[in-house]
Amino acid sequence: MPQRNRREVVRFLVAARQCEIENLKHLLEAGRLVLSITGLVHRLQRERGASNLFLGSGGQCYGEQLQDYQDAATQAERELRARLGGWLEHTQCPHGCARFFARIATALHGLAGLPELREQVRARSIAVTAVMTGFNDLIRDLLAVVFEAADSAADPQISRALVALFNFMQGKELAGQERAIGAAGFSQGGFDDSLRQALLHRIDAQERSFEVFADFCDPQSRAAWQQVAASPHTSEVERLRRIACTRTLSGADGMETAQAWFAHTTHRIDAMKRVEEGLEAHLEGLCESRIEAAGSELAAADAPTAGFAALALAAAGPFATLFPDAQTEADGEARSPVLAAGIGAPLSGRSVMDLVHQQSRRLQAMEDEMHAARKALAERKVIERAKALLMKHRGLSEDEAHRFLRQTTMNQNRRLAEVAESVVSMAEMLG
Amino acid sequence: MPQRNRREVVRFLVAARQCEIENLKHLLEAGRLVLSITGLVHRLQRERGASNLFLGSGGQCYGEQLQDYQDAATQAERELRARLGGWLEHTQCPHGCARFFARIATALHGLAGLPELREQVRARSIAVTAVMTGFNDLIRDLLAVVFEAADSAADPQISRALVALFNFMQGKELAGQERAIGAAGFSQGGFDDSLRQALLHRIDAQERSFEVFADFCDPQSRAAWQQVAASPHTSEVERLRRIACTRTLSGADGMETAQAWFAHTTHRIDAMKRVEEGLEAHLEGLCESRIEAAGSELAAADAPTAGFAALALAAAGPFATLFPDAQTEADGEARSPVLAAGIGAPLSGRSVMDLVHQQSRRLQAMEDEMHAARKALAERKVIERAKALLMKHRGLSEDEAHRFLRQTTMNQNRRLAEVAESVVSMAEMLG
Repeated sequence: MPQRNRREVVRFLVAARQCEIENLKHLLEAGRLVLSITGLVHRLQRERGASNLFLGSGGQCYGEQLQDYQDAATQAERELRARLGGWLEHTQCPHGCARFFARIATALHGLAGLPELREQVRARSIAVTAVMTGFNDLIRDLLAVVFEAADSAADPQISRALVALFNFMQGKELAGQERAIGAAGFSQGGFDDSLRQALLHRIDAQERSFEVFADFCDPQSRAAWQQVAASPHTSEVERLRRIACTRTLSGADGMETAQAWFAHTTHRIDAMKRVEEGLEAHLEGLCESRIEAAGSELAAADAPTAGFAALALAAAGPFATLFPDAQTEADGEARSPVLAAGIGAPLSGRSVMDLVHQQSRRLQAMEDEMHAARKALAERKVIERAKALLMKHRGLSEDEAHRFLRQTTMNQNRRLAEVAESVVSMAEMLG
Repeated sequence: MPQRNRREVVRFLVAARQCEIENLKHLLEAGRLVLSITGLVHRLQRERGASNLFLGSGGQCYGEQLQDYQDAATQAERELRARLGGWLEHTQCPHGCARFFARIATALHGLAGLPELREQVRARSIAVTAVMTGFNDLIRDLLAVVFEAADSAADPQISRALVALFNFMQGKELAGQERAIGAAGFSQGGFDDSLRQALLHRIDAQERSFEVFADFCDPQSRAAWQQVAASPHTSEVERLRRIACTRTLSGADGMETAQAWFAHTTHRIDAMKRVEEGLEAHLEGLCESRIEAAGSELAAADAPTAGFAALALAAAGPFATLFPDAQTEADGEARSPVLAAGIGAPLSGRSVMDLVHQQSRRLQAMEDEMHAARKALAERKVIERAKALLMKHRGLSEDEAHRFLRQTTMNQNRRLAEVAESVVSMAEMLG
C-alpha cells in the first residue's frame, strides 16, 4: 500500500475516534445536567403537593413548609442554571443538539413562569387545577430534556442508565399525578368517567414506564424497585385503585379513604425517591469512570487535533495510545509486528488493516449494545407522537388518545408500539 | 419574564438553530461526496465486467477497453480523493461522524488494493471469482459510505433523496452481480444449488432495494424507473431468470442463452445508469437550492457565533433573519406585535414564547418528515445485522442467511424486518 494512502486511511480512523471522544465529552456534560434536573423535578413535585394542600386548607396549613419547599426548588433551579451557563461555550455540536437545545429553551421558558405561579398560590388567587397544570407542564418540559439526553447518547452504558432514569422519573411523575387525581376523586366521594379515565391512564402509563426502567437499570436498582413493589403500601394502593374504579363512596367514607389513599401513595412515592437516588448514583459513577478512562485518550487526542501533520509520521507511538485495544491485540496475537515494534516504525499495510478492522468491530459492538436502548426510545417517541396526532386530528384529550391506543392494541392483539406506528404512518399518508 | 431569563432562552434557541445549520453544511458536503462515489462505483462496475471478459477470453479481447475503463476509474478515484482532502479541516463533528469516517477509512483501505488487483488481471495470474470478490467488496465498502451519509442526514428532503439513491445503487450493484452469476451458470450449461441460491438472493434483494427506492425517489425518477421495468429487455431477463431456476440446458443451448442473458441484462443495467443520473441530478439540485437558501441564514448565524454577547441585545432584527418563519407568522397573525415592530424593539415574554413554540413545531415537522426515511434505514440496518449474525453464529453463507430469513418470513407470515429484529434481539439475549 503506498505510504500516502496509508496516511489518508489513518487520518480518517483518527478523526472517527476523535468524534467518539468529543461525543463522550458532550455526553458527560449532559449526564451532569440530567442530575441537576432530577433534583429540580423532585423539589417541584414536592412544592406542587404542598401548594395543593396550602390552597385546599384555605391558606391555614402548610404555609411554612411551602416556603421551605419553594426555597429548595429555587436553589435547585440556580444549580441547574449555573450548569447551563458554561454549556454553549463548547463548540461541539453533536447529534440531536438542535432538539436538545430547543428542549432546554422550552424548559427555561417554563421556569420563567414559576415566580408568577408562586405569587398566585401565596395570594390564593388561583384554582388548584391551574396550579397542577402549571407544575405538570413544567415537569414535563424538564423530563423532555432528560429524554433528549438519552436519545442523543452514543455510549451504550450511559445510554442504558439514562433510559432507565428517564423512565423511572416518568413513572414517578405519573405516580405523583395519580396521587393527586385519586385524592380529588376520593374526597369528592367517587370518580366520574373522565376522572376514572385520567386515573387509569396514569396507572397504565406508569406500569409501562417502570417496565422499561426495569429492563435497562442496574441490578441494585432493580432489586430496590422489587422491594417497593412488594411493600404493603403498594398492595394498599392496588386495593384503593380497585375501589376507585368500581365503587361509589358515601361522603364520610370518602374523606377517610382519601386520607388512606394519600398516606399510602405518599409512602410509595417516597420509596421511589430512594430508588431514584440509587439510579442517580449509578449514572454519576458511570460518568466518573468514563471521564477517568477517557482522560488519557483525550490527552493523546488533543495533540493531533492541532494539526493532522503529526499523524503523517504514521508512527506506532500515538496510535498505541489512541487505539489501546489494537495495540494489545497486535501485541497479544503478534499479528502486527511492525505496529508492535514501537515508536518510529512505519505502519505497514497489514497493521493499517488491523486498525481498520478493529475500529469497525468496536463500532459494531457499540451499535449492538445500543440496539435495545434505541428501540425503547424510538418506541416511546412513536407512542407519544401517535397520541399527539390523535389529539390534534380527532380532537381527543390525552386520556382519550391513550385509551384509544390501548383499546386498539387489545382488540388487534398487537403491541402498543406497533399500533402507534400505524397511527403515525397513516397520518403521514393522509398528510 | 425577567430580561436575563429571556436572554438565556434565546441563547439556546439560537444555538439550536446554529446546530441545524452546521448539520446542513456537513450534509451538503456529504451529498457532494456521495456524487463522487456514484461516479466511481459505476466505473468500477464497468471495469469489473471488462476484467472478467478479458480473463475469460484468455487475454485475447477487451484489452484496450479494459485500459480505458481503468483510466476512467482512476480519474474518478482521484476526484473522490480530492473531495476528501478538505474534509477533515471542518471542525464540526455531527452525529454518526465516527461511523461515517470509519466507513471512509475502510473504503480508502479497499481502494489501496486496487493497483495490485489490476496487475494480477493484466498478468492473468488471478481467477475470475477472485477478481469478482475483490471488486464486489470494494463496491460494498463504497456503498456503505453512501448509507452512512443517508443515515446521518438530518434534512428531510436530502435524506429522502439519499435513501432513494442508496437503494438504487444497491439494486444496480445487485443487478450487476446477477448478470455475472447468470453468465457463469448459463455458460456452464446450468445452475447447481449454490449458484441458483446466489441468483435468487440477488433477484430478491434487488427487488427489495428498488421498492424502497421507488418509495423515496422524486416523481421523475419513478417514471423513468417504470419505463425500465416495462421494457422488453426486462421481460426477457424475467424469462431467462425462470429458465435459470427450472431447467438444465445442453451445452450449445447454454452458450447461446448465456449471450442472450448478457445482452439483455446489460441493456437493463445501462437503462438503470440513466435513472441513476436522474437521481444524481435531483440530489445535486437539492443540495444547491439548500445552499442558496441557507446562504443568508449562515451569514446571519456567523455573526453571533463569534460571541453570544450580540444576542444579549435581544432585538427583533437578528431573529427576523434567523427565524424567517417566525417573523412571517408573527407578521401574518399579528400575534407578536413586539417582534413585528422591527429592529431595536425588546423581545417581550410573549414573542419569546412564539419563538419557542415555532422552533418546537418546526423541529417536530422535520422529525415527522424524516420518520419514513429513518424507518427504511433502520430496517435495512437490522436486516444486514441479522444476516451477519446468522453467518457468524450458524456458519451460514450470505446467500444461506438470506434464504433463512426469507423462508422464516414466509412461514411466519411476518415482515422481513420483523423477523430480522427477532434474530437480532435473540442474539442479544443469548449474548
